Amino acid sequence: MLGARRLLGALRLCSSVSCPRPRASAKLRVRDALGVQDASGECVTVQGWIRSVRSQKEVLFLHVNDGSSLESLQVVADSNFDSRELAFGSSVQVQGQLVKSLSKRQNVELKAEKIEVIGNCEAKAFPIKYKERHPLEYLRQYPHLRCRTNTLGSILRVRSEATAAIHSYFKDNGFVHIHTPVITSNDCEGAGELFQVEPSSKMKVPEENFFNVPAFLTVSGQLHLEVMSGAFTQVFTFGPTFRAENSQSRRHLAEFYMVEAEISFVESLQDLMQVMEELFKAATEMVLSNCPEDVELCHKFIAPGQKDRLEHMLKNNFLIMSYTEAVEILKQASQNFTFTPKWGVDLQTEHEKYLVKHCGNIPVFVINYPLALKPFYMRDNEDGPQHTEVA
Amino acid sequence: MLGARRLLGALRLCSSVSCPRPRASAKLRVRDALGVQDASGECVTVQGWIRSVRSQKEVLFLHVNDGSSLESLQVVADSNFDSRELAFGSSVQVQGQLVKSLSKRQNVELKAEKIEVIGNCEAKAFPIKYKERHPLEYLRQYPHLRCRTNTLGSILRVRSEATAAIHSYFKDNGFVHIHTPVITSNDCEGAGELFQVEPSSKMKVPEENFFNVPAFLTVSGQLHLEVMSGAFTQVFTFGPTFRAENSQSRRHLAEFYMVEAEISFVESLQDLMQVMEELFKAATEMVLSNCPEDVELCHKFIAPGQKDRLEHMLKNNFLIMSYTEAVEILKQASQNFTFTPKWGVDLQTEHEKYLVKHCGNIPVFVINYPLALKPFYMRDNEDGPQHTEVA
Repeated sequence: MLGARRLLGALRLCSSVSCPRPRASAKLRVRDALGVQDASGECVTVQGWIRSVRSQKEVLFLHVNDGSSLESLQVVADSNFDSRELAFGSSVQVQGQLVKSLSKRQNVELKAEKIEVIGNCEAKAFPIKYKERHPLEYLRQYPHLRCRTNTLGSILRVRSEATAAIHSYFKDNGFVHIHTPVITSNDCEGAGELFQVEPSSKMKVPEENFFNVPAFLTVSGQLHLEVMSGAFTQVFTFGPTFRAENSQSRRHLAEFYMVEAEISFVESLQDLMQVMEELFKAATEMVLSNCPEDVELCHKFIAPGQKDRLEHMLKNNFLIMSYTEAVEILKQASQNFTFTPKWGVDLQTEHEKYLVKHCGNIPVFVINYPLALKPFYMRDNEDGPQHTEVA
Repeated sequence: MLGARRLLGALRLCSSVSCPRPRASAKLRVRDALGVQDASGECVTVQGWIRSVRSQKEVLFLHVNDGSSLESLQVVADSNFDSRELAFGSSVQVQGQLVKSLSKRQNVELKAEKIEVIGNCEAKAFPIKYKERHPLEYLRQYPHLRCRTNTLGSILRVRSEATAAIHSYFKDNGFVHIHTPVITSNDCEGAGELFQVEPSSKMKVPEENFFNVPAFLTVSGQLHLEVMSGAFTQVFTFGPTFRAENSQSRRHLAEFYMVEAEISFVESLQDLMQVMEELFKAATEMVLSNCPEDVELCHKFIAPGQKDRLEHMLKNNFLIMSYTEAVEILKQASQNFTFTPKWGVDLQTEHEKYLVKHCGNIPVFVINYPLALKPFYMRDNEDGPQHTEVA
């Protein structure tokens, strides 16, 4: 309370020496406002949504978030402001002075001189409630509103940063970006369910094809990219990919984004794996440095208790082992697998997970698969196509 | 010839003092090799495709291109190298010394010490012929090979640079990137033909929907992006968009990439137009500075004789006029239009083209359309929805 009073006193003082021309107030993103070092009363305007309201006797604390960061900006306002108007979820424009906060919980805060409610939020009708923790399953019902929660906001910011980081990495390393087609007549993987595409008006007459041939949504840009790698030594694509599998698992979605790259004149598998490791590390480092708090929040949901795992992967070299070595490790494992590991049989998810754990939670490349397990588009080993068990 | 002989002499000298360990030769992209200032015999390795072969008595000139730039690297080789092996279209790896070229046509050239043919090109079977100008209609038959021509290579490099520039602009200006869904149940524009999507196995039983409801390919991410702009003040999407229109024009494709952005708390249309102008200019400047020769080549096909048009647009402010002003200008035009301009009727392409020309070939924003012409998702003017003719 003492702190609040002192703040209030300061606020009044500020009012009397307030910015001479209100127009001179600089519009700042919350993220940028929070990043101001040694704030000393700069006149700023911040716009965003109210994430919390705390009303005290003579002072009102608001947290305003504009989606630029997980952290909100604390706004300190005179209690004369109508706290009913300033409701959780409402969008506001706040003009005031950016000052060093007396609390240790934040660097800066905004002493409000003017608060304008842009859009009022009806608390009763709004499915997201103040101070409540909504399970993801509940939020699932409100795809148009859930982006206003901390968790979904963090996921979307991480995704945005990761997307930018992937584009940067390839650009900085001389790759040409190719928009491989989404609608295609080829079935790249030669397996799996495809989505077929026809104009909605023609769905009833499937014998007539809009593109003259049956057309599908891409399952991989690989074949198109391979064509490009006959003209550009380094190409990549990063676009939507589709699988019509009726699977409700974390591993499969009907629509997802996939990064694919092709490098010509590669002399060894090691060179290729090096690029993959660099891409992962460069992109992860960029995301971690741009929104560490978002990454931490996402980790809580995706891999609780493993928030240091990314740093661990960044610090260590990825590992490479042959398929034969991998099977040997699995055979010697004390763990009971649902599928007994056996040379000549494909690795299962449980096997992959065990190998990663065995290697100290570092990503592992498994190379030199037996010929019979390779898809048609994979290169044969140089020691002959009849690559068989060594032991 | 004298030049060639002197080069050859230098080449032999170079051979005798060649790089002690061949492994020490740095792998360079053609673009980077061409950019080396004051080359002085650096040992380098270049990989790419042969774009031309010129055999002289004692020397062989090759042009090697790896897709990193329109310009190829000149390779000067001893005539002992087998010129039949070194055919147009073949992929090669050349090791040698990078030296200042004696010719004014290029800065540097590569004195070959070792040339390895990686992939041989059968000249007779290869549809792209040495020294021939192939019309685009001819190349259209070879979608898997046309990227090896100058024109298509340039178009793809410009597209790649433009894509990167768009991502950079938004990232640098604090926009959050959103992957709006490709498969959607909403018809954003409320008009136009949609592509419908079903698993290929279910095409014969259209009454059963994979997603429980009929699903379409997106015609615009706008509605999804508007939802996001309730949580993030600045968002953008840049993804594939689809129209099932049976149109074979330059303006409509079944699949194309579209940039869309939403900004919350915008106070005037001017602020929005400012962002669009900045985006266009920043992205264009980036493309022009990264691959000016590619832009020039593309211009030859798209807008012959107008290669300075981009620079002209960059130097001038874009213009803004009201719909009413636009109609007045069109009415006073000496040009005969197929569609007579009339207040209350939508502008045609011929009208838009005239307006741009009238304004000195600068992009023009036409604002304040009559209510009746606005799509449902556009904001009404503030002077009341019954916005009518002023005159």
